[in-house]
Amino acid sequence: MSKGHVDFGVPSGRALRAEPQDEASGRGLSRAVEVTLRVRYAETDAMGIVHHTNYIVWFEVGRGEYMRQQGGDYAQLEAQGYYLRVIEVQARFLAPARYGDLVTVRTRVEEARSRQVTFAYEVVMAETGQLLATGQTKHICVDEEGTVKAIPEAIRDMLRRN
Amino acid sequence: MSKGHVDFGVPSGRALRAEPQDEASGRGLSRAVEVTLRVRYAETDAMGIVHHTNYIVWFEVGRGEYMRQQGGDYAQLEAQGYYLRVIEVQARFLAPARYGDLVTVRTRVEEARSRQVTFAYEVVMAETGQLLATGQTKHICVDEEGTVKAIPEAIRDMLRRN
Amino acid sequence: MSKGHVDFGVPSGRALRAEPQDEASGRGLSRAVEVTLRVRYAETDAMGIVHHTNYIVWFEVGRGEYMRQQGGDYAQLEAQGYYLRVIEVQARFLAPARYGDLVTVRTRVEEARSRQVTFAYEVVMAETGQLLATGQTKHICVDEEGTVKAIPEAIRDMLRRN
Amino acid sequence: MSKGHVDFGVPSGRALRAEPQDEASGRGLSRAVEVTLRVRYAETDAMGIVHHTNYIVWFEVGRGEYMRQQGGDYAQLEAQGYYLRVIEVQARFLAPARYGDLVTVRTRVEEARSRQVTFAYEVVMAETGQLLATGQTKHICVDEEGTVKAIPEAIRDMLRRN
Repeated sequence: MSKGHVDFGVPSGRALRAEPQDEASGRGLSRAVEVTLRVRYAETDAMGIVHHTNYIVWFEVGRGEYMRQQGGDYAQLEAQGYYLRVIEVQARFLAPARYGDLVTVRTRVEEARSRQVTFAYEVVMAETGQLLATGQTKHICVDEEGTVKAIPEAIRDMLRRN
Repeated sequence: MSKGHVDFGVPSGRALRAEPQDEASGRGLSRAVEVTLRVRYAETDAMGIVHHTNYIVWFEVGRGEYMRQQGGDYAQLEAQGYYLRVIEVQARFLAPARYGDLVTVRTRVEEARSRQVTFAYEVVMAETGQLLATGQTKHICVDEEGTVKAIPEAIRDMLRRN
Repeated sequence: MSKGHVDFGVPSGRALRAEPQDEASGRGLSRAVEVTLRVRYAETDAMGIVHHTNYIVWFEVGRGEYMRQQGGDYAQLEAQGYYLRVIEVQARFLAPARYGDLVTVRTRVEEARSRQVTFAYEVVMAETGQLLATGQTKHICVDEEGTVKAIPEAIRDMLRRN
Repeated sequence: MSKGHVDFGVPSGRALRAEPQDEASGRGLSRAVEVTLRVRYAETDAMGIVHHTNYIVWFEVGRGEYMRQQGGDYAQLEAQGYYLRVIEVQARFLAPARYGDLVTVRTRVEEARSRQVTFAYEVVMAETGQLLATGQTKHICVDEEGTVKAIPEAIRDMLRRN
C-alpha cells in the first residue's frame, strides 16, 4: 500500500513575519508564504541542473500560493477581468538544484502601490535551507484589452494583509 | 499566520490495486500511485486551458513518484549510469484543466519486460474525479553512451513490486 | 558585420507530394510542409538530449507552418472563434537530437473529416535526413465555450489543398 | 508546391555596431547579432500573450546565435568541458507578443571580463521594430563539477570580436 507520505509540493506553513507595513506608502515587507516543489525532470537541462527559466516559473507558483493563502485567488481575479501582468523580473542564481530535489519558494509582497505591486522571492533547498536563488517581479494591473488599471483596493488589501 | 494547509501537490496515497501480476510474462497491471499537482499559470496557453504537452510532463512527474513510492529513485538510477529513455508516448485529452485546478496523476506499470517498460497514466480532476486525460509511455534502458541495455533485475523488481 | 547566413528555422520548401486525396472520404495524404528549427538549450534535459515533450511542441510548430503555407493562419482561425483542440497525440522517438542541432519537421494532413482532422509528422536531422521522431495528432474544432463544432468547410479545404 | 518563403526564425543579418571596445577593461558594447523567431503556441498563456519566461528562453537563443555568428559554438564549448552558467537575469516587458508574431532578438556582449560575461538583449516586433522587451544576463564559466573557472582567452576573444 502507498503510504502517501507528503513529498510533492506542500505549503510548508512556515511564515516569516517581517516589519510592520507602512500603510501610508504601501511599502514594507509582508510575511513570507512558502510552497515546496519537487524538481521535475523536464525542468533540467543538458548541464544536468535546473534550467534557469524554471526558477521564474517557480516564482509564479509562489505568487499564486501567496494569494491563495492570503484568501485571494488569481483565477478569480482574472474571472473579474483583472490581470496582473509581469513588467519586470530579476533573478540571481546562487547554487543549482537537480532532478528530484525538494525546493521551497518563499514569497512576500515587497510593495503594493495603487498601480504596481512588487513580489520578492527566495528559493531554498527544502531540507538544508541552502539558498539557491533570489528574485523579484513587478506587476501592473491590466484589463482584457491590456489597458492599465489601478489595482482594485480589495486586491491591494489582500496582497498586504498579514 | 499561515496555516500551511496542504494544497500543492501531494501523493494522495490512494492506491488502486489491480489484478495480480503474471510473473512469467512480466505483464499485468501494478497498483496505481497517485500524485496531485496544482496547475501552473505557465502551463496554460492562449485557449485559456492547459497546453497539451504539460499532461506529458505530468506523466513524467507521476512516473518519478511511482518509483519513489516503490522504494526506487530515478535520480539514483541515473547516478548508476542507467537512463529510462522514452521511446513512445501516447495521450488522449478528454477535458481541459485550467489554472489553479488540482489534478491527480495516477501512474501504474503496465508491463515490465527485460528490455522495455510501459507505464500507463490517468489524469483526473482531484476534487471531482473527472477524467481529463489518459496516456502511456514506453521506455528502454540506455547507458551514458545511449547503448540499449537490459533493464537491471533490481529495477524491474522495483517497478513491479506491489 | 553579420553574415546573416540563414540557420535558425526556415521552411525549407521541399514538399513531398503524396497520393491524390480521396475526396469522398477526406482521406489521403496531403503534401508535406517542412520547417527547420535549431534545438534550443532550454529544450534539452539532464540526459543531455532533447526532452521528449519538445518534439510535440515542434509538431505544433509544423502544424502552424502547414496552415501558413496552405494560405491559412491559425491565429485568424482563433480570431473567428474557432479552435483546433488537440484530442490525441502519439509520438515515437527513434534517435535523440541535441543542443544546436538543426531539425526539420515534416507535416502533412492525414485525414480531414467534418469533425476531426489528423496531422502526421516526421522530425529528421536537417543535414543527414536521419529520422528522429514520428507522430500524429488528432484535433476537433471547438468554439470559445469549448462546444464541439463542425470544422468550417473553408478550413477543411485549406487543410486539404495541394 | 511549397513556396518555402522564409518565415521561421532567421538571423536577419542586420548588425548594429556600437562604440569601439575598451580592450583594457573588457567593457564596451559589441555589435548586436539578430535572430528572428516566430512565436509558438506553446509559448502563450491564458492571458492570450507570450508567457514572460519565454523571452528569457529567447535571450538564450539570441546568445547561441551570437556565438555562432562570432565563429564560436556553445555546444563545442561544452564538449571541451566549459559551461557558461547563468548567474543573473533581468528583463523588462514593455509590450506583449502573441501567437504567430515574428519577433527579433538582438544580442550583444556588454562586458567580457576574465571571470564574468554580460549579455544584453532587445526583443522587437520584426515587422514594426516595436520594442517588446529588454534584458541582461550574467554568466560565469564552470567546469563539469561546477567549479568556477576563468573564461578561456579564446572564448573571451570570440565574445568580443567584431
